Amino acid sequence: METLSPVPKHFPKVLVLRPSDVFTVLENKFSGKFEFLKAWEFPIPTDQFLSTHATSVEAMFCSANTSVTAAVLRPLPSLRLIVTTSAGLHHIDLPECRRLGISVANAATVFSEDVADTAVGLLIDVLRRITAADRYVRGGLWPVKGDYPLASKLGGKRVGIIGLGSIGLEVAKRLDAFGCTISYNSTKKKPHVAFPFYHNVLDLATNCNVLVICCALTDQTHHMINKEVLLALGKKGIVINIARGSVIDEKELVQCLVRGEIAGAGLDVFENEPEVPKELFELDNVVMSPHRAVFTEESFNDLCELMAGNLEAFFSNKPLLSPVD
Amino acid sequence: METLSPVPKHFPKVLVLRPSDVFTVLENKFSGKFEFLKAWEFPIPTDQFLSTHATSVEAMFCSANTSVTAAVLRPLPSLRLIVTTSAGLHHIDLPECRRLGISVANAATVFSEDVADTAVGLLIDVLRRITAADRYVRGGLWPVKGDYPLASKLGGKRVGIIGLGSIGLEVAKRLDAFGCTISYNSTKKKPHVAFPFYHNVLDLATNCNVLVICCALTDQTHHMINKEVLLALGKKGIVINIARGSVIDEKELVQCLVRGEIAGAGLDVFENEPEVPKELFELDNVVMSPHRAVFTEESFNDLCELMAGNLEAFFSNKPLLSPVD
Repeated sequence: METLSPVPKHFPKVLVLRPSDVFTVLENKFSGKFEFLKAWEFPIPTDQFLSTHATSVEAMFCSANTSVTAAVLRPLPSLRLIVTTSAGLHHIDLPECRRLGISVANAATVFSEDVADTAVGLLIDVLRRITAADRYVRGGLWPVKGDYPLASKLGGKRVGIIGLGSIGLEVAKRLDAFGCTISYNSTKKKPHVAFPFYHNVLDLATNCNVLVICCALTDQTHHMINKEVLLALGKKGIVINIARGSVIDEKELVQCLVRGEIAGAGLDVFENEPEVPKELFELDNVVMSPHRAVFTEESFNDLCELMAGNLEAFFSNKPLLSPVD
Repeated sequence: METLSPVPKHFPKVLVLRPSDVFTVLENKFSGKFEFLKAWEFPIPTDQFLSTHATSVEAMFCSANTSVTAAVLRPLPSLRLIVTTSAGLHHIDLPECRRLGISVANAATVFSEDVADTAVGLLIDVLRRITAADRYVRGGLWPVKGDYPLASKLGGKRVGIIGLGSIGLEVAKRLDAFGCTISYNSTKKKPHVAFPFYHNVLDLATNCNVLVICCALTDQTHHMINKEVLLALGKKGIVINIARGSVIDEKELVQCLVRGEIAGAGLDVFENEPEVPKELFELDNVVMSPHRAVFTEESFNDLCELMAGNLEAFFSNKPLLSPVD
């Protein structure tokens, strides 16, 4: 049995507002290097907790489930670093961080390959009806009803990638090997990318069979995939979303799927997770994943290393491993 | 309304022993070019039907569901061509065809891309638990039970491809783009292939995390994936089969899956289709597809063109489009 000695006072303090899976692993691995101040373990309101530690806290650790607003930052004048386990940053008030001189480090590209794998897996699944066919077999229908209906080929499909960051580029690399034709929409044209660029998603949807949504959720991308875009994609069109649920107007997506105005969808994310629109449960042309595109055992380990590496770098005055510009 | 005139006597006769989806399409498209003799539409036993048409039948059209044995060939002395809709040829007695001077044309590489897509789709699905996670979401478990367990990453997996023909090469090309390490087993080492070659499947299984079975079913490959090979693949190993069910000893596979002696399987084919071992229905680490890896609308159309092209070539004394050596 291990003997636990009390944490010495001089370990660097790292504030954690809410528990998470990554934090549990990180805490076990690095409790001998940092003093984690876990807000939820203190029997006092968070604002009181924050003001207690105000002057001593230089670093904060968070996940996408923690809103780091100006109100959270105000009582922490010593804060100089926020490390987040997410690649996305919509939960952090970045302008306020910039104003206050707080650096932010994120998951960077740790998840990009896994997310891209899920995007491609969902697309093959929807086109080739793998999950639906598995239900058919498990339901004992094969011997009774005979051959399962013909599916649709991946090769030759015109795929529009929305958001050509590290995830989008990994998706493109994979789908290229399947013989798909890639084009993309992004905030601006990428200088070293040969794929055709579309300035707006409506034109992209009009010219594609498949949309793969890989962009960040921002005020500009919120409900960017609306009814007009879905109708432009058309009756044979497929939407894959591994970004954030709110990039799509989910109510309109559900209507389009129910009415057959698009052909199918592969969705890892939803607007009100973990709630998923019940109408989708009955549809064979939809494959749903509970926001797990980012996580494999391998990427989870890589993430823990990166998070700890950022904290160590910060406290030894070295450059962060994955700073957000 | 179209007026149907009776088929003139001089159209080349093509014997068809059993109905199939491809034949239905082919017949509709080419009934003005060939006279299809459909054995199942005649109210006489097949052997009697065959002897009636013995001297006039030069070409036969079949699918993998038709056993073309020496007994079937014996009453057809004029037969010079068999066109099969399958890539595999285990249903045709090839030595007997050779002896009788009967040419065989098959589906060649028409299906290769689609089959490879399915193999990769099944592999991503098993590793990332897409179908199982879809059940989790549809079952309403996400809000109740919370985060779905971590899955396993595709990148970095050591994948052993068994049978590096056109399908195996397409699988390799795709998995390479995902960052997998490819090695293979085949009847012999391929001269222009850089992937490491393993002379026997046991060694391949020992050195791999994943086996993708892409080989033909022959006397040599029947039950080639036996208990020993599966145990060598090990507890974290995954088997993908898009070849033929009998390449695996299915009973042993089921036992290994039930006992957790391998990690999972993606199966498009089974030993006694359409029957599937019921034990698999309860397993979340298995994804089942009802032998549909070969078929998409696109490949089906390509196949119909190829089949008709072979018949047309034969009857105009031109070289076959997809002759079997």
